[in-house]
Amino acid sequence: MDKTTIGPSTHLFPKPAVLVGAMVAGKANFMAVSWCGIASQTPPHISVAIRKIRHTLKGIAEHGVFSVNVPSLAQAAQVDYCGLYSGRERDKSEVFAVFFGGLDQAPLAVECPVNFECRVKDSLDLGSHILVVGEIIQTHVDQDCLTEGKPDVMKIDPLGYASGSMTYHGVGPVAAKAYSVGKES
Amino acid sequence: MDKTTIGPSTHLFPKPAVLVGAMVAGKANFMAVSWCGIASQTPPHISVAIRKIRHTLKGIAEHGVFSVNVPSLAQAAQVDYCGLYSGRERDKSEVFAVFFGGLDQAPLAVECPVNFECRVKDSLDLGSHILVVGEIIQTHVDQDCLTEGKPDVMKIDPLGYASGSMTYHGVGPVAAKAYSVGKES
Repeated sequence: MDKTTIGPSTHLFPKPAVLVGAMVAGKANFMAVSWCGIASQTPPHISVAIRKIRHTLKGIAEHGVFSVNVPSLAQAAQVDYCGLYSGRERDKSEVFAVFFGGLDQAPLAVECPVNFECRVKDSLDLGSHILVVGEIIQTHVDQDCLTEGKPDVMKIDPLGYASGSMTYHGVGPVAAKAYSVGKES
Repeated sequence: MDKTTIGPSTHLFPKPAVLVGAMVAGKANFMAVSWCGIASQTPPHISVAIRKIRHTLKGIAEHGVFSVNVPSLAQAAQVDYCGLYSGRERDKSEVFAVFFGGLDQAPLAVECPVNFECRVKDSLDLGSHILVVGEIIQTHVDQDCLTEGKPDVMKIDPLGYASGSMTYHGVGPVAAKAYSVGKES
């Protein structure tokens, strides 16, 4: 064993690079987030960690709803733009074409192949960040990203973010079938 | 726009495939989890969603500590095995070589290139699952997975899980630099 300790850190791999959408001061705003995970199945919940000073957090607090948008690798530049600049200093309402589902204060990005509409269920103050937990009310998917009615990762071609190297990555090809490769023969 | 709705769902992409470790009835147990995300930076926190009936949850509740272990693509079969079989029916204490850091009830898997030791900070009951939020107390990394002292995603070769197709995937090559590709020229 040849391990070393690097102290408390956030180097989980892989991590998604998604866009959290909210209405702030009447405008759609999108922030880049890689600290996001599914939090429950029934009903479905999702968590996003947002630094307390973030502009987006104001809109989520005001309206109690938000969106999570899963971009493709092709949208890396737009995602990065949304991570580099705050909605305080840049109007990001036209980075993506915006549509709405059932929640009229949760803006969704057309160009992102998967979009979740979320209603805030709970939030935890964890120091530098608030962990916002939302119930997923609806999922929108590009029709050409479905296979037999289910979202297909290879068609979505989602964007991942790697801390350490601070780089974006796509997802590799199918390496093994889950609930299968580990079965004892 | 050619979108369709599929109802509330958990189809976030990409998602990690990690192992949550705990001591249950005196034995190291590892469960496969893809619903895991970083929850804060300072201090670092991580969240894992665990179905209420899970064997691992008993150990976490008893000791207040757990581990998160980031496997490589090469460990897909072992990870899948840990997802297929409960610690109730299979002794999983020998699937991996086990070591301990500062938390003596948080077993760590030697073969996984990144290991987090975590102390439970909070938990949320979200229906089918408990979202366990832990403070990351220490990070262990394989020395040959570091570049300039930081974990290197390409050396780690981490394992991702895709819902929908229910498949495991590696991470693709560097597609773009973050905090860079979105800069306005």
